[in-house]
Amino acid sequence: MIARLFCWMMAVALASLTPLARAEDGYDLWLRYMRADAATSARIAAHGQVIAAPGDSATMQAARNELLRGITGLTGATPTLSNIVAPGALWLATPRTAPALPLKLEGLGQEGYAIRSIRVEGKPVTLIAAQGEMGLLHGAFHWLRLAQSGAALDAMDIRSAPRIGLRLLNHWDNLDGTVERGYSGSSIWDWWRLPDWKGPRYADYARANASIGINGTVLNNVNAKSDSLTAPYIAKAAALADVFRPYGIKVYLSVKWTAPMELDGLKTADPLDPTVAAWWKAKADEIYKAIPDFGGFLVKANSEGQPGPQDYKRTHADGANMLAAAMKPHGGIVMWRAFVYAHDNPDDRAKQAYADFKPLDGQFADNVIVQVKNGAIDFQPREPFHPLFGAMSRTPLMMEFQITKEYLGQSTHLTYLGPLFEETLKSDTFAKGKGSTVAKVIDGSLDGHRLTGIAGVANIGTDRDWSGSIFNQADWYAFGRMAWNPDLTADAVAREWTALTFTPDKAVVEPVVAMMMGSREAAVDYMTPLGLAHVMDTGHHYGPGPWVSELARPEWNPVYYHKADATGIGFDRTKSGSNAIAQYAPPLAKRFADPRTTPERDLLWFHHLPWGYRLASGETLWDGMVHRYDRGVAYVAGMRATWEGLRPMVDGERFAQTQTFLAIQQREAQWWRDASIAYFQSIARRPLPAGAASPPESLEAYKMRKFPYAPGNP
Amino acid sequence: MIARLFCWMMAVALASLTPLARAEDGYDLWLRYMRADAATSARIAAHGQVIAAPGDSATMQAARNELLRGITGLTGATPTLSNIVAPGALWLATPRTAPALPLKLEGLGQEGYAIRSIRVEGKPVTLIAAQGEMGLLHGAFHWLRLAQSGAALDAMDIRSAPRIGLRLLNHWDNLDGTVERGYSGSSIWDWWRLPDWKGPRYADYARANASIGINGTVLNNVNAKSDSLTAPYIAKAAALADVFRPYGIKVYLSVKWTAPMELDGLKTADPLDPTVAAWWKAKADEIYKAIPDFGGFLVKANSEGQPGPQDYKRTHADGANMLAAAMKPHGGIVMWRAFVYAHDNPDDRAKQAYADFKPLDGQFADNVIVQVKNGAIDFQPREPFHPLFGAMSRTPLMMEFQITKEYLGQSTHLTYLGPLFEETLKSDTFAKGKGSTVAKVIDGSLDGHRLTGIAGVANIGTDRDWSGSIFNQADWYAFGRMAWNPDLTADAVAREWTALTFTPDKAVVEPVVAMMMGSREAAVDYMTPLGLAHVMDTGHHYGPGPWVSELARPEWNPVYYHKADATGIGFDRTKSGSNAIAQYAPPLAKRFADPRTTPERDLLWFHHLPWGYRLASGETLWDGMVHRYDRGVAYVAGMRATWEGLRPMVDGERFAQTQTFLAIQQREAQWWRDASIAYFQSIARRPLPAGAASPPESLEAYKMRKFPYAPGNP
Repeated sequence: MIARLFCWMMAVALASLTPLARAEDGYDLWLRYMRADAATSARIAAHGQVIAAPGDSATMQAARNELLRGITGLTGATPTLSNIVAPGALWLATPRTAPALPLKLEGLGQEGYAIRSIRVEGKPVTLIAAQGEMGLLHGAFHWLRLAQSGAALDAMDIRSAPRIGLRLLNHWDNLDGTVERGYSGSSIWDWWRLPDWKGPRYADYARANASIGINGTVLNNVNAKSDSLTAPYIAKAAALADVFRPYGIKVYLSVKWTAPMELDGLKTADPLDPTVAAWWKAKADEIYKAIPDFGGFLVKANSEGQPGPQDYKRTHADGANMLAAAMKPHGGIVMWRAFVYAHDNPDDRAKQAYADFKPLDGQFADNVIVQVKNGAIDFQPREPFHPLFGAMSRTPLMMEFQITKEYLGQSTHLTYLGPLFEETLKSDTFAKGKGSTVAKVIDGSLDGHRLTGIAGVANIGTDRDWSGSIFNQADWYAFGRMAWNPDLTADAVAREWTALTFTPDKAVVEPVVAMMMGSREAAVDYMTPLGLAHVMDTGHHYGPGPWVSELARPEWNPVYYHKADATGIGFDRTKSGSNAIAQYAPPLAKRFADPRTTPERDLLWFHHLPWGYRLASGETLWDGMVHRYDRGVAYVAGMRATWEGLRPMVDGERFAQTQTFLAIQQREAQWWRDASIAYFQSIARRPLPAGAASPPESLEAYKMRKFPYAPGNP
Repeated sequence: MIARLFCWMMAVALASLTPLARAEDGYDLWLRYMRADAATSARIAAHGQVIAAPGDSATMQAARNELLRGITGLTGATPTLSNIVAPGALWLATPRTAPALPLKLEGLGQEGYAIRSIRVEGKPVTLIAAQGEMGLLHGAFHWLRLAQSGAALDAMDIRSAPRIGLRLLNHWDNLDGTVERGYSGSSIWDWWRLPDWKGPRYADYARANASIGINGTVLNNVNAKSDSLTAPYIAKAAALADVFRPYGIKVYLSVKWTAPMELDGLKTADPLDPTVAAWWKAKADEIYKAIPDFGGFLVKANSEGQPGPQDYKRTHADGANMLAAAMKPHGGIVMWRAFVYAHDNPDDRAKQAYADFKPLDGQFADNVIVQVKNGAIDFQPREPFHPLFGAMSRTPLMMEFQITKEYLGQSTHLTYLGPLFEETLKSDTFAKGKGSTVAKVIDGSLDGHRLTGIAGVANIGTDRDWSGSIFNQADWYAFGRMAWNPDLTADAVAREWTALTFTPDKAVVEPVVAMMMGSREAAVDYMTPLGLAHVMDTGHHYGPGPWVSELARPEWNPVYYHKADATGIGFDRTKSGSNAIAQYAPPLAKRFADPRTTPERDLLWFHHLPWGYRLASGETLWDGMVHRYDRGVAYVAGMRATWEGLRPMVDGERFAQTQTFLAIQQREAQWWRDASIAYFQSIARRPLPAGAASPPESLEAYKMRKFPYAPGNP
């Protein structure tokens, strides 16, 4: 009776039926510790079957736990914790636990480490040694990175120490849970249920950061609310600091300049007013009572409407130094942002930070560091390095990169930022002759600064995968790794990340790294070719808006940045224009003065050129622009094809997400290309080069598109 | 050399070291399918070793997949999918696949099912039979519920069909990702990346809802934006509908009355204007083209500032019927909310919905259902049932419960809502004599309506545990189960939920259910004893604010609701007051007219009484209030003690969350008690009863507390 009923197709997707397996949802980031192949697993087991890691501090526990977690995951066998030396032991030691260490630790500092394959009493042991336990934790993560990547684990001889002291994330997270320029859900800080409830995500955040060398986090938005300095919010920050401390992550806060007025009714926020200074001193004392290792303050002042010392006719240095005096007794610092431009200053926006800060060089207290964005405008797909780098030799300067991709496709575009970081860090300022790279400015070596730092505006939110997509995780990873060692190449970091995140299999690593490495240049091509900038639609910065021209402040309008007219396009920053090039060292100023010697990638950043200007290729500027738009779109199509080819080698969940996002990216790259061409063609009045397709919609149609719920808009 | 170094304590928490085990983060809700004990596992395996479920539709795949997932998880062995009858098969059949089914399916409808242990060709088989595949899916979930609960699986003979047709969640989710009255993160609808990206959470949402019988979801806030009716947002809703369809979950939208004006520039939104009607008809056609099984519209009109037909001197019926005409050709419905009160109406707010809607009884089109909140004010810890229930016999009325706990402790308080639901559903309206319960009104049986419904305002957000806490999940669960069968008791549902969510072990179930069952009454006690209402602080409704009196509209102020003065406290709704009691059937009106016959739990809802009024216990009203505040706080202390005793039986992660939240609840219950007493004592000017502690802070101190970032505030 039943048999005849069962003429049906059995179409059960078994992949969806494994309730006990972890979903590949990206939560584990690059710390996945999935079972390795037999050969790798055997190698790991041979070198990590015993963990000898004396010490009962929280940091030592973190190091042991991570090694246990990692080795167990990778091999399926749990290593033993032992105090007996055994063949294949991982031995974590400091001079305190092992006074006669067989290697030198000089120069490694408190965070660096050495890893060496040695013999102890005739037995092969991998020694991870450091001056302090934080170095051991970093060393443990390094060893695990090699183990996960399938690297050889014998004959090891590694020394590593961070080149830059402060390696921080900046969270632009608001107290109401929203994130300015956040594209991956809301804030991971559950301010409302802190300090009581400390969910497991906080510790995982700290683990992830420690694993790539990040050692601090600014919890709240630079557009700060005073409330973050009230007692309840200090207690909440302290609760987070408690979770992060074992991982070496210090907590910092952004502060609002007028907090003394808003919170306690002071009549002024003048930095030279003694009551104001006393207020901040008391506030610092209050914070340090709750958070003894509090890192310090980050300040956005007199910028984009934020109050600041200039409101009282004082300088940025006056303001920074007053706060620094409050921090000083506690060992805290002040990070003072140089991202300033004033609504009443008609000068080229790109020049204003330099104009404000350069004269203050040498006036800052020794626990102040000035935080400078990588470029002089605002985190564009490409900008020349900020002219302040190399221009303030008596002031420590800190780099501010943006990891969240406000201007590079937001959550869905695959635009790996490693090349952007590398390009900036390797830029030569010529401040002290050739080789005076930005990296040497910020690592302090160029000018002999001991206070050094680098910050990345985080791309972290409540999305299960933390960063809005699997590939966005690579930007967080790259920031951390290149903050530790600014000489790492974007390519090397992409290889590491891909091996950890997907598989060490070259059949995956090679094509994925190839996709990643060209992806940022593709975004430059389809958004802002040839040195264009800030042509994104206003406010949310999502999608093209080169036509926007009616906003109140000139520098709010994309037309301010591209200056396209019937004769040509580009921002003349030479002597005949704003003369911003004079803010660079003479060899660069000279190079940028002439379009022929200006790198073509920065051409329209520095020059207003005729549409018929001949590029190096011989084609006209107009034709070259169109070709670049098309090249950018084609690159995305290429990434899609590459990704399709990886289908057999990537789990279904992560394959599908990337496949979907690449489809979005291609559609939006095409939109960028079409809308930009429709607009600029309406100005240039030139035909498209042969083979280039006309935009399918009218310029008016592109202008009509509105996105009232675009995320991240403050 | 090494050995002497290892004088250290090994303090490794092994629980945190199991990288391959699932964290107990609550994501799996009541569908955990954890490995059962040996006896239960054997029983499940004996009855579920073979799944015979013919049919290749998405719904059949969902049923098969769920059974595979569940049985595999519970037993560790994967059942076989087979078309050969075997001992221990689960056989899912409809009349289409098995014309000669050995049981009757009459009366089960398309969603009901029967489960019976039978023999087929001599072999023991569990037959799950239904008229359609959706019934089979529900039956599969029922069987899995029993299996997870450790119930006997032989000699089964079950018939179950939903008593109420529309069992919907109402999401008050905004298009920007925020959730009005949401306390569990942001919206799970990733509007921005829809329709392209359909993350795995959507299917899990549908599974969870289907498992408890929910069959529809209103995606967006009743305070609606017109944009949700634009083409891009219809496409996004359609993408969700595609994911939900196999699980029998229909999609509905809230609509803004003035959408035709806002989106297409119509000059009016008058429901009797033909251009308006034509606009809605075209919009309905557009929606149904994208979502052929679209459920219909939910409308909040002329309420709390929302526009509506009354702006054009038309009635709610005029408005609803115009929309209903647009829905009618497609089989869609209109849910018209009766939650109305007008800023220019000086009458008792509790009377206004009745006054507006009662006269319209019989005037609504047959695809309109009027959605009425459980009480006449707004989701208070306790309200008498809404007088509209039983008062509109010619109009289908739909219940609106609030699952999200706007007024019952928000995310952290353990206040199980099952008893609130049960109390309301069992309330007797006396509309057609004794036994005319609210349940019979909304299931249609009292007045013979075929269109029936119940809605719950969802407590779902992006928090990993969906609902802000493990125990909040019970409210979602209870809503679904009691919507399917309004006769289920809160106690029975709590037992089910606890067994599924924690363990069927009585040593856990009994104390947990005991905690849950008294928890809502405890919140009544520490927030709004003896029939008080709406004394929460204004706006966010977090914490006490009985003193608030200065807001523009009288009914925005808590003093409006409690009317405490030197002589007494309470809202006189008898003839000497607002006479709201006249809106109830005569036997109830008579009962409520006299404080002596009014249930004490509703005393101050209906009566203004002297502070010295004697309660049934003999104590004064004032003393009784104080005792109830104290009783509520004491109950929470008791829950904490109970929970501590469960530590050995609950996993660490869920134990810690509940432990933390109970501590918050006790602190806040105490605050409620202290602040309320401080305020009311300042009015009553009476001493505290013996043994009652004075509030530790001044009334002014309680008034000073401000919560600018309280979540969920629109």
